[in-house]
Amino acid sequence: MKLYLLPPSGNAYKVRILLSLLNVPYEKVVIDGSKQENKQPAFLKLNPRGEVPVLEDDGTVIWDSAACLAYVARKHGGEQWLPGTPKEMAEVMQWIALAASEIQFGLQYGRRGVRQGRWTAGNLEQSQAIARVALNAMEGRLKNHKWLALDRPTIADIACFPYVETAPEGEVPLDPYPSVVAWIARCKALPGWAPR
Amino acid sequence: MKLYLLPPSGNAYKVRILLSLLNVPYEKVVIDGSKQENKQPAFLKLNPRGEVPVLEDDGTVIWDSAACLAYVARKHGGEQWLPGTPKEMAEVMQWIALAASEIQFGLQYGRRGVRQGRWTAGNLEQSQAIARVALNAMEGRLKNHKWLALDRPTIADIACFPYVETAPEGEVPLDPYPSVVAWIARCKALPGWAPR
Repeated sequence: MKLYLLPPSGNAYKVRILLSLLNVPYEKVVIDGSKQENKQPAFLKLNPRGEVPVLEDDGTVIWDSAACLAYVARKHGGEQWLPGTPKEMAEVMQWIALAASEIQFGLQYGRRGVRQGRWTAGNLEQSQAIARVALNAMEGRLKNHKWLALDRPTIADIACFPYVETAPEGEVPLDPYPSVVAWIARCKALPGWAPR
Repeated sequence: MKLYLLPPSGNAYKVRILLSLLNVPYEKVVIDGSKQENKQPAFLKLNPRGEVPVLEDDGTVIWDSAACLAYVARKHGGEQWLPGTPKEMAEVMQWIALAASEIQFGLQYGRRGVRQGRWTAGNLEQSQAIARVALNAMEGRLKNHKWLALDRPTIADIACFPYVETAPEGEVPLDPYPSVVAWIARCKALPGWAPR
C-alpha cells in the first residue's frame, strides 16, 4: 500500500495514525509541495482535487482522508474502527462530516490563513465562528463520553484530531473546551498512535 | 421514522430523495426557520450544529445529511446504496467528502450569499473558486462514467445532487460541465426520485 503525502499535512496524518494503530505496513510517497506537485497533471490523475492524502493499493486509488480512513478501517480493522451496522456507521459518519466541513473550513483553513496569510475560504473572523460550531459540538459530546461516536475510539476521532489539536495555531484557543483538551490527550495515549 | 427539515433545505432534500427511492414511510417535522427554531436549545439537543436534517428513529438520533443517508441506506437499502466492502465504501465516501466540503462551501454557501447577501464562509470569488474544484472533479469522473462512485447510483450521487443542480443560482454556470448536466438529468429520471 502506498500513501501519497505532504509531510506537514494534517489530512495525511489522519491516515498515518490509523495505519500505525493497526500496524499496517505501507510505503510513503512524499509529494513536493514547493513545486506544487499535487497540482500537476500526473497527480491530478490520482486525485482531481489536487490534495493529499491519496492511497494506492493493488490498483485501487482512494483520495480524500475520510475515504482513506474508511478503506483502511474496513480492510484491516474488522468492525472496530468503522462498523457496518446502520446506527453505528451513521454515528461515525456524523463526526466525519464535521471534520470535512466545520473543522476543515474553520480550523484547517483558518490556521493556514493565520500562518501563511493565504485565505482561500473566508477571513479570520468567519473561520473562528465556524471553528466554534465544531468545538461546541465536540465539547457537548465529550463532556459525558470518552470518544466522539461510540464507546470506543473510531475513525471519527482520528478524522477530527489533527486540526483540532492545532486549533490554537489558528488563533482559536482551546481553554473554553476542557473536555476536548482531555480527549486530545486520550487519543495520543492510544497504543500505536503515530507521532505527527 | 421522523425527518426534521426546513422545507427549502437542500441537505434535508438529500434524505427525502433516498427515503422516496427506497419507499420508506416517514413523518416530516417542519422546523420554523423564520423563528430560527433550529438554533434554539430544544433543537440543539438533537443536533449541536443547529442544522437540518435530523433523523429520529426508535430513539436513535442522527444529524448531518450524509450520516442520515448512510443510516437509511444501510437500514433499508442492503448493499445497494452504501456497500460495506472496503473499496466500494471508500469510493462512495470520497464523493460524500466532496459534498461536505467543496460543494457545501463553494456551491451551497455561495448560493446563499448571492441570494441572501449572507456570507458566512468567504466571498463570491472564493466560493466560485471552490465550486470549480468540485465541478471539475465531477466532470472528470462523469465524462466516462454514468455515476459518481460505482457503476450504479449510490448515496454519493444523492449527497452531491441538490447544490450542484442549483449551482447557477449562485452565479456558477454549469455550461462548462456538460457531463454534470447529463448526470443531473440521469438522477432525476431514477424511478422514485423525489421532487424538490
